[in-house]
Amino acid sequence: MIMKEIEKFFSPKSVAVVGVSEEPGKLGSIIFNNMLDAGFKGKLYPVNPKYKELFWHKVYPLVSEIEEVVDLVVIAVPSKFVNDVLEDCGQKGVKNVIIISAGFKEIGEEGKKLENEILATATRFDIKIIGPNCLGILVPQNGVNASFTASTPRVGDVALISQSGAYCTAILDMAMPINLGFSHIISFGNKVDVDETDLLPVLLKDDAVKVVGAYLEEIKYGNKFINEVSKSAKRKPIVILKAGQTNEAKKAIISHTGAMAGDIEVYKTAFEQSGIIEVEGLRDLFNLLMAFSWSKYPKGDRIGIVTNAGGPGIVATDLVVDSGLKIAKLSEATVELLSKNLPPTANIHNPVDIIGDALADRYKTAIQALAEDNGVDAMIVIITPQLITQIEETAKIIINAIKVYDKPIIPILLGEKYMSPALSRFYDNRFAAYKDIKDAVDVLKGMVNFVTFDTNDFLSVDKVEQIIKSGKYRAEVAENIKYDQALPDELTQKMCDEVGIELPKQKVCMNLEEALEFSKNLYPVVIKALNSDLPHKTDFKAVHTNLTGESDLRAAYTVLETRLSEYFLKDKHEWSKEILIQEQVKGQEQLFIGANMNGSSGVYDQSGEGFGHLLVFGQGGIYTEIEHDMAYALVPTSIEFIKKQLMKTRVYKILDGARNQAELAIDKYVDAIESVQKMVLLYPEIKSVDINPIIVNTDRAVAVDVKVFC
Amino acid sequence: MIMKEIEKFFSPKSVAVVGVSEEPGKLGSIIFNNMLDAGFKGKLYPVNPKYKELFWHKVYPLVSEIEEVVDLVVIAVPSKFVNDVLEDCGQKGVKNVIIISAGFKEIGEEGKKLENEILATATRFDIKIIGPNCLGILVPQNGVNASFTASTPRVGDVALISQSGAYCTAILDMAMPINLGFSHIISFGNKVDVDETDLLPVLLKDDAVKVVGAYLEEIKYGNKFINEVSKSAKRKPIVILKAGQTNEAKKAIISHTGAMAGDIEVYKTAFEQSGIIEVEGLRDLFNLLMAFSWSKYPKGDRIGIVTNAGGPGIVATDLVVDSGLKIAKLSEATVELLSKNLPPTANIHNPVDIIGDALADRYKTAIQALAEDNGVDAMIVIITPQLITQIEETAKIIINAIKVYDKPIIPILLGEKYMSPALSRFYDNRFAAYKDIKDAVDVLKGMVNFVTFDTNDFLSVDKVEQIIKSGKYRAEVAENIKYDQALPDELTQKMCDEVGIELPKQKVCMNLEEALEFSKNLYPVVIKALNSDLPHKTDFKAVHTNLTGESDLRAAYTVLETRLSEYFLKDKHEWSKEILIQEQVKGQEQLFIGANMNGSSGVYDQSGEGFGHLLVFGQGGIYTEIEHDMAYALVPTSIEFIKKQLMKTRVYKILDGARNQAELAIDKYVDAIESVQKMVLLYPEIKSVDINPIIVNTDRAVAVDVKVFC
Repeated sequence: MIMKEIEKFFSPKSVAVVGVSEEPGKLGSIIFNNMLDAGFKGKLYPVNPKYKELFWHKVYPLVSEIEEVVDLVVIAVPSKFVNDVLEDCGQKGVKNVIIISAGFKEIGEEGKKLENEILATATRFDIKIIGPNCLGILVPQNGVNASFTASTPRVGDVALISQSGAYCTAILDMAMPINLGFSHIISFGNKVDVDETDLLPVLLKDDAVKVVGAYLEEIKYGNKFINEVSKSAKRKPIVILKAGQTNEAKKAIISHTGAMAGDIEVYKTAFEQSGIIEVEGLRDLFNLLMAFSWSKYPKGDRIGIVTNAGGPGIVATDLVVDSGLKIAKLSEATVELLSKNLPPTANIHNPVDIIGDALADRYKTAIQALAEDNGVDAMIVIITPQLITQIEETAKIIINAIKVYDKPIIPILLGEKYMSPALSRFYDNRFAAYKDIKDAVDVLKGMVNFVTFDTNDFLSVDKVEQIIKSGKYRAEVAENIKYDQALPDELTQKMCDEVGIELPKQKVCMNLEEALEFSKNLYPVVIKALNSDLPHKTDFKAVHTNLTGESDLRAAYTVLETRLSEYFLKDKHEWSKEILIQEQVKGQEQLFIGANMNGSSGVYDQSGEGFGHLLVFGQGGIYTEIEHDMAYALVPTSIEFIKKQLMKTRVYKILDGARNQAELAIDKYVDAIESVQKMVLLYPEIKSVDINPIIVNTDRAVAVDVKVFC
Repeated sequence: MIMKEIEKFFSPKSVAVVGVSEEPGKLGSIIFNNMLDAGFKGKLYPVNPKYKELFWHKVYPLVSEIEEVVDLVVIAVPSKFVNDVLEDCGQKGVKNVIIISAGFKEIGEEGKKLENEILATATRFDIKIIGPNCLGILVPQNGVNASFTASTPRVGDVALISQSGAYCTAILDMAMPINLGFSHIISFGNKVDVDETDLLPVLLKDDAVKVVGAYLEEIKYGNKFINEVSKSAKRKPIVILKAGQTNEAKKAIISHTGAMAGDIEVYKTAFEQSGIIEVEGLRDLFNLLMAFSWSKYPKGDRIGIVTNAGGPGIVATDLVVDSGLKIAKLSEATVELLSKNLPPTANIHNPVDIIGDALADRYKTAIQALAEDNGVDAMIVIITPQLITQIEETAKIIINAIKVYDKPIIPILLGEKYMSPALSRFYDNRFAAYKDIKDAVDVLKGMVNFVTFDTNDFLSVDKVEQIIKSGKYRAEVAENIKYDQALPDELTQKMCDEVGIELPKQKVCMNLEEALEFSKNLYPVVIKALNSDLPHKTDFKAVHTNLTGESDLRAAYTVLETRLSEYFLKDKHEWSKEILIQEQVKGQEQLFIGANMNGSSGVYDQSGEGFGHLLVFGQGGIYTEIEHDMAYALVPTSIEFIKKQLMKTRVYKILDGARNQAELAIDKYVDAIESVQKMVLLYPEIKSVDINPIIVNTDRAVAVDVKVFC
């Protein structure tokens, strides 16, 4: 069981550090001393063939010469020696190893080779590895600091995992002055073995962990990662700084760790769909870790604001509304209470402005009133340093209120010189407090997102297991896979029938006569080249629409036939002479549905890498990319989530009958999206599905043009 | 000349403070002592009829009893006494008065009355007033601290003006520990007289001012304010925190200062069009003031990044690209230099990762290389606290580089505990430095916006003065102004002709026969109710389109006639029996053009309040609001700016011939927008123009439906 194996890293009874030397500045020596400083209670063995005794401890020449099989070995020797040490560990029966050493995949080919060697050795001896090229791990509650940080943080309930050691040290440096405590800090570097997906379930299960923070450049087993979130019994906030969103940054990642950064929409959708909170930078990450560790959580999104100055109250109101949170409407009782107890010049509505001459007791009056108003889910209290403001007294009042009331009360102290001592009071009490309104609003937004997340949005393979069986035409699909070419129309049609995607009445014709015969009772009709012949029809003008009668059809058919003959002649290709005739579906609204594979085809049984298929849907037609009116859902997903996402598009309002127009068949369209999901689950080898347009009218959603690529 | 009068506030030779008392905590006493602390070299007079001597100064019972006519009087007595003091000042011949006292407009009706009284007195005696309900002013270079701040800042080149005193004290509290210096801090509260538009030209002209920061809730004389920016001889950065963007915040503003917050798009466009930098919050404002005061300015937008850790380099790259700045491409020479002097595991391309074991000298190598690369306009240098990082040595190296090189080098110190001392080194040298990557990127974005702003975008009435004459039909317009009703179509048509807006061939008909006759050679045609009868045609279904022949027209005409008769019967209105017949203009692309008045009609000769008219243009049709694909320009503006703004819309790509479609008559459309501008300049009484749709095809832009409201 992998969870048990991972847990052994965090609570070892004996630890060997390989690479300790007489120089205290060397990695191995620092790690050894960090273990001592952290108060490790188990056995600690320095290993180095060159010494007999170091730091008052007996030194062992090899891990295998230690009298016992240690629970954890930390390796900090030059990369070329790492495999020998690992071999020695394996011989001895050691199962958990942290490789601090750099000089592997991140330096190029040679390092990649070394990394493959250690992976092979680890596999042979069934060793779990964290690293290489990492900072190490800290588990303060167990006296473990198997890292080369400059200090050991307080014991706390924040777990931090990171692909970047520097982000660990930066966060640690921010946490130390305010004594924010950690349950785990795990830097896993090149993640040759243990990665984010292995670590997450252990941290989510551990009662010592209240919130998980992560810096990640890619999530290799995306679908599995997201599933670990959904499977976890207790929901915990997970805050991720996902780097490498832009192409420019991806290039930097490749040179940095050799990891491939994923597609931005895939990650954004995955996080949204599983209730993970994404942040843009270090400060946001730190602020949210502080809040989730130290604050009470709100029950809803209605924010109350108390301020001793109008301006900041207005700015706070702007930021609350912009972030999607709500300005709480105070109850009549609250307003009356405030009107009775505040001076007449105060604003007794939210944002409550207790004005510049407010002393601490006026803060108390206002905070109490809002805290006891059931219409307020969370409170922001702004202190500006005005003439008679009692900064520290007010801080004490707020600290009392935070202790008493069961809703978050977030103080914002605008300023620095006279504000810092008050800020420290909050931190000393382990209460979140901020220096900027935007920080506090962002934090509240993150907390509200966490508490209001609908767990039904969770991706869960379990929920759709019944439909993961094999598609009827897999053999035929396998035969027809051609690079950069869609599956043949006839096969695509059969697959559409299988999953329930409605197509227009249509026929592939070999000649004009056949076309005329088929169209007889069907006008207006459309003719087009076959999908498998030409992937980009419109740009080639290989579609003729609105053919209202025989003469139209005759003319268009002849033109298209000639153009296609010339096109194929030029490319010296065979052409089957086939042209597709379709009823022209009535309805103004052209939409589209797409699905793109992210990862390997084994992703749905969780053996494969990636996130699976991303469904995309929204405004269609030839300007789909320009209009960029689309929403996303990762497979597998629910009808409810598809609907929720669709409602974010502009075209949804049109479907819903804006401007007194008829309501269109939204449900039929959503069903079609669900059918596309079914198709990629039945045929996980599908690279992409592209339905554009799918015409939605008042009673049908008809997929006029369907292309499937494998 | 108003500028001279304003300047007198800042360099008085004698100052009287009214309301000084023996209690040192009273406003008047604090202001008096602040003047002493600030080292005021002129004559200082405490005024209070109750005392003979205070703070070792002779006290005067009245301002009029002082032996000289003082340059500046600061009033800090209860609001009910203010008018008497002002009257006394006026009698004596005092011209500059700051009213600190609160209790005016912001408290409601009673206060509003008091405020009107003091305004009348001031007008009578030709007194300029700053305030009431303000913190006062600080001009450290002249020893002036006529405010009740807790301290006086260093002399510097940052000018700060604010409607909120609390924002002044908060910024001061942030500035004090790092010794950021100010030329002016001016809190003008209720701005009964002197406001942002009076202050701005004085600050822009003053050589002591390098950057102007402002917290504003509304700009009353918007057009004039923007013109002051454009008229200023030397361009200086102006950074504005504009509060009250959301409706919820506007409500708070009204209760706070009684000011009406303006329309969000008007402000955003005004700032963009005049090169003003807008910020979201206090931190952004402070960071930019620091950068504009202490940093060199970039010449372009190509950013170089140096980091000792991969992760932060990637995050910085993401943020740079997201902000619209560019990741500089290093020259071959630079790359070769880096490859020669950095370890093989470093990333020698931008972002340059000098990796975790970088000492200060390696920072020097990388910074020097990038500083001397002409392809790099500005540099971000990231320090993370790793094992052997020489934090302070590195800071010293960066400080040297900042001094030597003529481009901005912005250090980012990720962390707190071990980072703070290094951060202080930068501040002590008066160099901008930040703790978060986003802060630094936002600052660079602001600076790049300032230096790359095209001054041709400036709003300037001068440039369009030639077209500001009276419209030919102003008398007729005046006769036809009706609340919530458009001008009659015939008048609108004449106005369109006057400014050069192309309309479809059309005629107002009284009966079916007339309509049939007119349409004879014109099919397909459109019929509709007259604009002046029905403002919202589509929702009423009062338009019939695509009438391809006589029978179509006959049927539609009859239906519309009946519907209109019923409608007018119900409302007991007269109906003229008129129906409009138009050619149906060919072309798929429906666009729109709108113009909305913001302010009074005197705004263009700068006597009126507001910003003038806001032009809006983009995707039209019935889903204009849903698609929300629009751009803005404030009148007066240039063809170039209109084009630049239009290019931000999605529909621009369609007009420009995306997806192999024909290019449409963009120039004709832009001309039509310009014609609308001309119309509102000829008729400044126009409240709104609404052209939707204007059909743009390959050679025409035809305004199919034009409504003008006055």
